[in-house]
Amino acid sequence: MKLYMAPYAPNPRRVAMFLAEKGVSDIPIEVLDLPAGAHRTAEFRAKSPLSQVPTLELDNGTCLTESRAICTYLEGLYPEPNLMGRDATERAFLEMWDRRVELAFAMPLMMWVRHGHPGLAAIETRQSADVASFYEGGAKRMAVWLDQQLAGQPWIAGERFSIADITAAAGMDFAKMMKWRPEENTPHLKAWRERLAARPAGQVGP
Amino acid sequence: MKLYMAPYAPNPRRVAMFLAEKGVSDIPIEVLDLPAGAHRTAEFRAKSPLSQVPTLELDNGTCLTESRAICTYLEGLYPEPNLMGRDATERAFLEMWDRRVELAFAMPLMMWVRHGHPGLAAIETRQSADVASFYEGGAKRMAVWLDQQLAGQPWIAGERFSIADITAAAGMDFAKMMKWRPEENTPHLKAWRERLAARPAGQVGP
Repeated sequence: MKLYMAPYAPNPRRVAMFLAEKGVSDIPIEVLDLPAGAHRTAEFRAKSPLSQVPTLELDNGTCLTESRAICTYLEGLYPEPNLMGRDATERAFLEMWDRRVELAFAMPLMMWVRHGHPGLAAIETRQSADVASFYEGGAKRMAVWLDQQLAGQPWIAGERFSIADITAAAGMDFAKMMKWRPEENTPHLKAWRERLAARPAGQVGP
Repeated sequence: MKLYMAPYAPNPRRVAMFLAEKGVSDIPIEVLDLPAGAHRTAEFRAKSPLSQVPTLELDNGTCLTESRAICTYLEGLYPEPNLMGRDATERAFLEMWDRRVELAFAMPLMMWVRHGHPGLAAIETRQSADVASFYEGGAKRMAVWLDQQLAGQPWIAGERFSIADITAAAGMDFAKMMKWRPEENTPHLKAWRERLAARPAGQVGP
């Protein structure tokens, strides 16, 4: 196996945090230079047709993209500790929480950064201030809602740490580029991020 | 079990098409009137805190939201025909395709409609013409890419029909509201939608 990654990008970090929680550190990694367009070459597109990182190349040469799909595959290879659910019911509820934080929090934060940060104009084909503003508002409203949830439970999906915590943290950390992080108005979200910092996933760098 | 749905909305249709392929038609359904705000009442928010439909209420009273998570649960209850993969590897590759068409095609099409169609101003808290335009462009580029894929394979993920076909069709059908559908410039996408129309999923109304 070989994992194609990129520094600072939230989706590769999601897979890196997932692997850290599994205690897996022996998958060869190739880091792509996104500002130089390394993800847009014909050679890389043969592996990842939509130029996405992370991409996991399997030993038989087939390639898997989409961070959450890569996590599904890795969960099959390295089942412990379980991060995505042990049966269909638990998988469904953890997927619900993972999608809530991905689609309503992490992805809006990423869209805010991608469309609002001048340093990313080289990667984005078309930045839009209105897209940035739309997602900034949605993400910040979701931060308040998540804060309320975390007042009564230690992790996003409840009592147990899961992929949903990784997804939320990867998105939130990326928003540091907009100088945004949870502060006094979302104390439970701030405390949750501090709990995560003490775990293996919290040791993953940019 | 009880399924909370809404007419015309793409995410409830995704679950309806999934159930049609499974041959399941005996789950009680309650249809919510979204323009009247039925999804924003305190009673419904107790089941679906982010006011999302579809919502599946289980017999023990717990509620599951997020269309794909509901499909994961239903796949456990009704395993045949398999639509999401039989083991972790197959689940991962079908999830990759499902996410590709959801995040780069169905969701952009939905965002285009939600932000571009005047009839939806009552549901959207804030419509943005620039958001609509951004997603219109992305979805139409993805339609061309999908058309190329479907030149060599009958279904989105390859030789077998899967949840990815349902996700793509639900998003694409919703874009009829913008008078957009695949035409001569994407003949393989058009032929794929016609193949799907002959299946159980194709019999699901708005």
